[in-house]
Amino acid sequence: MPAPKHTFKPPFNIVRCSHVGLTVTDLDRSRQFYETVFGLIVTEATPDALYLRGLEERQHHSLVLRKGAKPEAQYLGFKVGEEQDLDMALDFFKAKGLRAGFVERPHQGRTLLAHDPWGLPVELYAKMDGAELLLQKYANYRGVQPMRLDHFNIFAPDVQGSLDFYAGLGFRLTEYAEEDGPNGRIAAGWMHRKGNVHDLAFTNGAGPRLHHLAYWAPTALNIIHLCDVMATSGFLPNLERGPGRHGISNAFFLYIRDPDGHRIEIYTSDYQTMDHDHEPIRWSLRDPRRQTLWGQPAPRSWFEEGSAFTGCEQRDAMFKADVIIAS
Amino acid sequence: MPAPKHTFKPPFNIVRCSHVGLTVTDLDRSRQFYETVFGLIVTEATPDALYLRGLEERQHHSLVLRKGAKPEAQYLGFKVGEEQDLDMALDFFKAKGLRAGFVERPHQGRTLLAHDPWGLPVELYAKMDGAELLLQKYANYRGVQPMRLDHFNIFAPDVQGSLDFYAGLGFRLTEYAEEDGPNGRIAAGWMHRKGNVHDLAFTNGAGPRLHHLAYWAPTALNIIHLCDVMATSGFLPNLERGPGRHGISNAFFLYIRDPDGHRIEIYTSDYQTMDHDHEPIRWSLRDPRRQTLWGQPAPRSWFEEGSAFTGCEQRDAMFKADVIIAS
Amino acid sequence: MPAPKHTFKPPFNIVRCSHVGLTVTDLDRSRQFYETVFGLIVTEATPDALYLRGLEERQHHSLVLRKGAKPEAQYLGFKVGEEQDLDMALDFFKAKGLRAGFVERPHQGRTLLAHDPWGLPVELYAKMDGAELLLQKYANYRGVQPMRLDHFNIFAPDVQGSLDFYAGLGFRLTEYAEEDGPNGRIAAGWMHRKGNVHDLAFTNGAGPRLHHLAYWAPTALNIIHLCDVMATSGFLPNLERGPGRHGISNAFFLYIRDPDGHRIEIYTSDYQTMDHDHEPIRWSLRDPRRQTLWGQPAPRSWFEEGSAFTGCEQRDAMFKADVIIAS
Amino acid sequence: MPAPKHTFKPPFNIVRCSHVGLTVTDLDRSRQFYETVFGLIVTEATPDALYLRGLEERQHHSLVLRKGAKPEAQYLGFKVGEEQDLDMALDFFKAKGLRAGFVERPHQGRTLLAHDPWGLPVELYAKMDGAELLLQKYANYRGVQPMRLDHFNIFAPDVQGSLDFYAGLGFRLTEYAEEDGPNGRIAAGWMHRKGNVHDLAFTNGAGPRLHHLAYWAPTALNIIHLCDVMATSGFLPNLERGPGRHGISNAFFLYIRDPDGHRIEIYTSDYQTMDHDHEPIRWSLRDPRRQTLWGQPAPRSWFEEGSAFTGCEQRDAMFKADVIIAS
Repeated sequence: MPAPKHTFKPPFNIVRCSHVGLTVTDLDRSRQFYETVFGLIVTEATPDALYLRGLEERQHHSLVLRKGAKPEAQYLGFKVGEEQDLDMALDFFKAKGLRAGFVERPHQGRTLLAHDPWGLPVELYAKMDGAELLLQKYANYRGVQPMRLDHFNIFAPDVQGSLDFYAGLGFRLTEYAEEDGPNGRIAAGWMHRKGNVHDLAFTNGAGPRLHHLAYWAPTALNIIHLCDVMATSGFLPNLERGPGRHGISNAFFLYIRDPDGHRIEIYTSDYQTMDHDHEPIRWSLRDPRRQTLWGQPAPRSWFEEGSAFTGCEQRDAMFKADVIIAS
Repeated sequence: MPAPKHTFKPPFNIVRCSHVGLTVTDLDRSRQFYETVFGLIVTEATPDALYLRGLEERQHHSLVLRKGAKPEAQYLGFKVGEEQDLDMALDFFKAKGLRAGFVERPHQGRTLLAHDPWGLPVELYAKMDGAELLLQKYANYRGVQPMRLDHFNIFAPDVQGSLDFYAGLGFRLTEYAEEDGPNGRIAAGWMHRKGNVHDLAFTNGAGPRLHHLAYWAPTALNIIHLCDVMATSGFLPNLERGPGRHGISNAFFLYIRDPDGHRIEIYTSDYQTMDHDHEPIRWSLRDPRRQTLWGQPAPRSWFEEGSAFTGCEQRDAMFKADVIIAS
Repeated sequence: MPAPKHTFKPPFNIVRCSHVGLTVTDLDRSRQFYETVFGLIVTEATPDALYLRGLEERQHHSLVLRKGAKPEAQYLGFKVGEEQDLDMALDFFKAKGLRAGFVERPHQGRTLLAHDPWGLPVELYAKMDGAELLLQKYANYRGVQPMRLDHFNIFAPDVQGSLDFYAGLGFRLTEYAEEDGPNGRIAAGWMHRKGNVHDLAFTNGAGPRLHHLAYWAPTALNIIHLCDVMATSGFLPNLERGPGRHGISNAFFLYIRDPDGHRIEIYTSDYQTMDHDHEPIRWSLRDPRRQTLWGQPAPRSWFEEGSAFTGCEQRDAMFKADVIIAS
Repeated sequence: MPAPKHTFKPPFNIVRCSHVGLTVTDLDRSRQFYETVFGLIVTEATPDALYLRGLEERQHHSLVLRKGAKPEAQYLGFKVGEEQDLDMALDFFKAKGLRAGFVERPHQGRTLLAHDPWGLPVELYAKMDGAELLLQKYANYRGVQPMRLDHFNIFAPDVQGSLDFYAGLGFRLTEYAEEDGPNGRIAAGWMHRKGNVHDLAFTNGAGPRLHHLAYWAPTALNIIHLCDVMATSGFLPNLERGPGRHGISNAFFLYIRDPDGHRIEIYTSDYQTMDHDHEPIRWSLRDPRRQTLWGQPAPRSWFEEGSAFTGCEQRDAMFKADVIIAS
């Protein structure tokens, strides 16, 4: 897997992953989970939706929960640099013969909903309503003290294809796992725009499905505290995996499930990646440390379960391999 | 200063420091401070008093706040081993010609209020009402996550005399600060019953006055979080000193003032001291690291201000020395 | 299981658990593990033995490794209050018809080696050579920053019998696990002398065998760092279980195996227990949180493997039950 | 102070601050400080120079110490995206009439040394020799566990001018401090390229001088550990300020002085800033929280002392104001 050429100029400028939309079946139950237990800030609550953000986020929302008949992921949201990037993005998707068009989203400016070649719904925007900066309102800190949305991880039926497509959008590879040997296929890849390990990762599996979204927390002690809180306030079954250290990304991690089964990672540490000649790290599929540096196995559910995307047909994985997902 | 003989059998068995009574001028304001900001649990609130405890404490209260016209310390509370220790204690104080007698205290069994030779009011009891154990109800953790009362520190007009008197009650010296030279006078001493650095410390100064009471917190990060919360929610003036590391006791510390000016230390680390041949550590008054290992000066207020004890006449310090207080 | 009467006066005064003797097959390899990776201080190294201590320990050793043909536990060491306690202990064991006699131990004063009714070798002493206090020599801090020996945990063929025997020596029960129902048998118990959750614990299993010895570390972050160091410097297979939170004792834990398979726990938090009326906490064998608050299973090895005691015949467990061990 | 227009396309692409060159008077003494105490990795040592890097840095050096007659800062190093950025930068500086030319630097590719309008020497490069990635060689972690160079802070005689000049190079303002009132002058500003609070900051004062360079550490506990190590291994006088929390940047900080007096900040937390519409935060010069959220004063030395740049003439500050420096 060659590193992408960074001299390549992307067709439009994605700055970072920004927000995600999920459907949930009980908004009150979700609010208790995300606000009281997990520690996100509720910017706005309507009868049909809940808008939440992390403690350092000045944007109106990084998580939108909408009441629905079944739990689904609706779209992944990315922020672009300027308004004209949206027009260039529309042209790009149209030229590729991919579905794309502007949609109305409360509290967002012009918003382009586009679908990648596998039907994954991606939402682009340049402007969003602001929200009060609470970074130094420490009395609001609760739960795991989630600071900001960090990344998305996607089950992909064609990992190589997905990595190629998003490299064409300017995403840069930081780590990847592949089979050994001269024809070794790639089973997972981590890509970024914002300068840390990832904004977006793909892992071999039936999909597209959302494996997890991740929030960044200040230290491992915040994550340990969340384990203690969840285990002793009725959310023990929602602790799925960890805490532990990923080989890939070097992050200290915890995976939890929300009341509808959507998976959230909490994540700390990782490293800088913005250099143009930053070399991606290769992991062999045979190296167990890529998933867990300390050797603890992940439960079956973690390899198999994910959130379907609304209206997005799923395909089988292109090849059978030990599923490789981390951070 | 010779180490006390541990073969010495004390006249009655004090197990540990247990609780303190303070008068405050505004119970609502104090509740906001101690419950919401600091993180103690309110066991009971009456129109005239507030009973609080730490997160691991199963006893009804370790801090009793009573409404009063002016802020004062009322007494220091210590737990004894058995009921008969109270009778032996009464005999002991009477034999010394010191004031002592049983008093009524809500939620406590038989309670002996005694006064040491300098008039310091000390309250002894063997039984107290219990309270629900919240140690593993992590959803209740707030503020600095105060786990338990750890110790008291007293401005004493005659430090050597106080250390001798409490050694006679079975307290064991762990650290002390004295003048250099053959006739160097002792300026401060730290004594314990429960097996860590101290339950009770004395420092040269006009008194008796309460310099501070201390709660134990799990880690330095909890203490840093309390600084952040206080500094950004209207309690910046209540941050008096620290955080820092004491040379004496090795504790990571923070000193704060409650709304009435009573001083609270939050404290973590320290070390075990229960061996009978445990040797006290001597610090020279000339060694600045005893107060602050990292070299930061303490503010003037910290050397001079303390809470008077109700009905207790104050005397001047027996000698003039750089005031030496830590942990 | 009724709480022991604390009015009971023990026949001699054990202050705390103090040290342990292990045989190892390769002293150099063990030194690398315990000094370089784990972080203990080497007080003395001879051709046949290695004496180590924690960062706050002023005693010559809390861990003695002796070269031997096979890995075994030699004895558990406890410190008594005064020299005469040793004579009273000798009388006590003799009166019970148990083996006991004075032995020579380098760097220790008079040392009584006694065997409990199941043959467990226990070593008592009042005086040991001192060692330089390194608590504030922070440049020596390495590995997990082990501060002090905290406790021993023993596989016992007759847990109820062991708890009764050690209660007769003044150990106080803090937590226990038992079968439900009116005739529920006790499967594990935690007992202390020094005022925290335990100095000595027993768990149902073929024995006596040493399940683990435990050192206390300052914070969970030190334990996470040890995981990272071990996993990336050739000691990944020595990480056995954790990190995690025990329901029992509330401790944050990690279990590792030394190069000979002896099990070490690293442990932080727990709580105070020195009150005479401190009530032990009961856990049902059916409550999985007693072992791991967060729900992670322990590996089989952790339930089954332990270190035999030199010259001590092993018996089968008295009853079959899910093995219950924690902290 | 209006926010810079992010639609503005910079004349060449600076990716991030990368490295710094300092002269020191005793390389052995500096090595002990930076390698043993502070925890940087020595990539290479020659008789005349020492090349060091942080634990996650894959580049040959982020700190170059060269033996010299007196302590000075030699240059600030920045990484550009591609080789052609160097040519565009040369054109840019030449067109402005500023000194600029290629220089030889060991282990770096083509390197442009340019001087800003105040004579500040800035070094640009696109390629540097690599070094082994030690991020997951945790056995090498020492001292404060410095992960990567984070930023530079400069005493500037004309802060507004410097901010304007570097805005013209594509640096984006994140926070600034200014006088109140309609004609309030700006006294300090923080600017970034890489997406966190800063790569480069300017503060009112005689200069150009280097106020400090900063490394990023994982958590506040690492910083507390460095305080403990320095205070107890002969480096107490090198602890200058902190630890504490800056209002500006929200970073937990510590300032230390190396054996030659060069100032190093260790820094953790801060926040993301890469959005094109990211609004800078304004602080009034009258708000003391901008410097220290918790209210502790900084020592005089911290406001006044800095490292001169080799061959760079110093000018007085353009106006007199309370000196405003943070993070």
